[in-house]
Amino acid sequence: MADAPLFDTLTIVGPGLIGSSILRRARQTGTLARHLIAADCSADVLNRVEELGIADEVTASLTEAAAKSDAVILCIPTGAIRPVAEAILPHMKAGSILSDVASVRSTLGPDISALLPDGVSYVPAHPMAGTEYSGPDAGFPTLFEDRWTLLVPPEGTAPEAIATMEKFWQRCGARTRQMTDRYHDQVCAIVSHLPHLLAFSICNTADRLSTDLQTDVLEYAASGFRDFTRVAASDPIMWRDIFLTNKEILLATFKRFEEDAHRMAEAIQNEDVETIMDRLHRGRHVRQGLTKQ
Amino acid sequence: MADAPLFDTLTIVGPGLIGSSILRRARQTGTLARHLIAADCSADVLNRVEELGIADEVTASLTEAAAKSDAVILCIPTGAIRPVAEAILPHMKAGSILSDVASVRSTLGPDISALLPDGVSYVPAHPMAGTEYSGPDAGFPTLFEDRWTLLVPPEGTAPEAIATMEKFWQRCGARTRQMTDRYHDQVCAIVSHLPHLLAFSICNTADRLSTDLQTDVLEYAASGFRDFTRVAASDPIMWRDIFLTNKEILLATFKRFEEDAHRMAEAIQNEDVETIMDRLHRGRHVRQGLTKQ
Repeated sequence: MADAPLFDTLTIVGPGLIGSSILRRARQTGTLARHLIAADCSADVLNRVEELGIADEVTASLTEAAAKSDAVILCIPTGAIRPVAEAILPHMKAGSILSDVASVRSTLGPDISALLPDGVSYVPAHPMAGTEYSGPDAGFPTLFEDRWTLLVPPEGTAPEAIATMEKFWQRCGARTRQMTDRYHDQVCAIVSHLPHLLAFSICNTADRLSTDLQTDVLEYAASGFRDFTRVAASDPIMWRDIFLTNKEILLATFKRFEEDAHRMAEAIQNEDVETIMDRLHRGRHVRQGLTKQ
Repeated sequence: MADAPLFDTLTIVGPGLIGSSILRRARQTGTLARHLIAADCSADVLNRVEELGIADEVTASLTEAAAKSDAVILCIPTGAIRPVAEAILPHMKAGSILSDVASVRSTLGPDISALLPDGVSYVPAHPMAGTEYSGPDAGFPTLFEDRWTLLVPPEGTAPEAIATMEKFWQRCGARTRQMTDRYHDQVCAIVSHLPHLLAFSICNTADRLSTDLQTDVLEYAASGFRDFTRVAASDPIMWRDIFLTNKEILLATFKRFEEDAHRMAEAIQNEDVETIMDRLHRGRHVRQGLTKQ
């Protein structure tokens, strides 16, 4: 027999890539929630969700949706989470769960905890999955499959609420782990935020080339540039928010990287073959560790 | 009717990823050469080529192979091309063609031109294709399909020899274009050499993390880090040679990138939203130009 739905009513605020993937998964499996609400402030987005048929109900009223829901997941840019949470939390039912999918935590945990009404739990989670596309058409039900979702509940969160959200993400196909906000942000600074910063930067470097050379760079982009910059096609607003929210840890990580890259350039300048080979071998070793997983 | 083979006897010096892919293509199509020789100084490599059955003849004597051949393609690290060319050129037949697949040109064109015996042409070409794997097992016959191969013959090369090598690469499935050495090296510095330098460097940064954090970075590597560093699994000796041979242009390109990345970090530091958004939009625009091709 199929598992009963985890929630009666689930609201996804912001049915974009992540949000619409959750809705599709919920529709496909029937084990996440009985009734699905998509809430967004854009009429275009809501119309599109309706056309796609991936929610039972669409609404522009976040507070009404929140009042009816057993769980609300904010799938919106990091910078919008605090104000939206502030607006909807007073309307949420006792026993319900607020979540978000922010890819950077900073002080979100304590900030939102301070706003929680009695009986409402906050169990945010960061699904480490994505593509460079956005919007309700970009989602698909297997987006989270075999990817990590990192649960980052603030200290003191009710264990049952954590267990429920862990089950939720596992039913989305994800592997789950719990960690603190700060550790989460350190891991993400290097596995995701720094690569994005560099990818956007190298595209800027390409943009400064002479027109001829730039055309040819795009024409001949081999796997290096192509793979390297794939993430630079990602949504600018989302990345602005991530960069600013994880500013402190990201810039510390960038500084280390800058030193490493500069030292490599110096070794090339000085034709210091020993240092070059040492760095190439270490780099390769780290990368190979990755493919063994 | 199938096309007649372009050459009677073809020698591939260094049947690794690129070399063995040419051999496999030649075997599969029959239109590149009638008789295939694989030459290498490693007995292990030659044994493996024999086991794979991708050449008609294997030999450790580069000069004997060269003497019998209508075309010799050096598929060896960039740093080895000049000395190997010097050793085999005196043995090559009038009317034959020497080629290589070096991914950086620097002064190779004039250097090798100066060594050419009468009647031997030098038509190097850089197939912009590859994977992070190496060795005779890594090749496959479709490696060059729909990828660019850039022909970089020195000034004054016989047009018939250029036309023959152009046809050769087209029969390998590649799109071809001719350009000068210096322009080639500028394009490759940004589409390939700089991304490799950065990928190796970010792996070095990851290598300096605390053991716990490093383990988790490898564990949770999302698409950013994963795509970004794929190329850092590439062969260190090949990349040492590329970095050193294209030193001047690569370091100039790196310097521009360093400025761009540093300016982006500064904008994040100063929470200069306008600059951040400008750079994210430009970066995305450049990257999107790439996927439209």
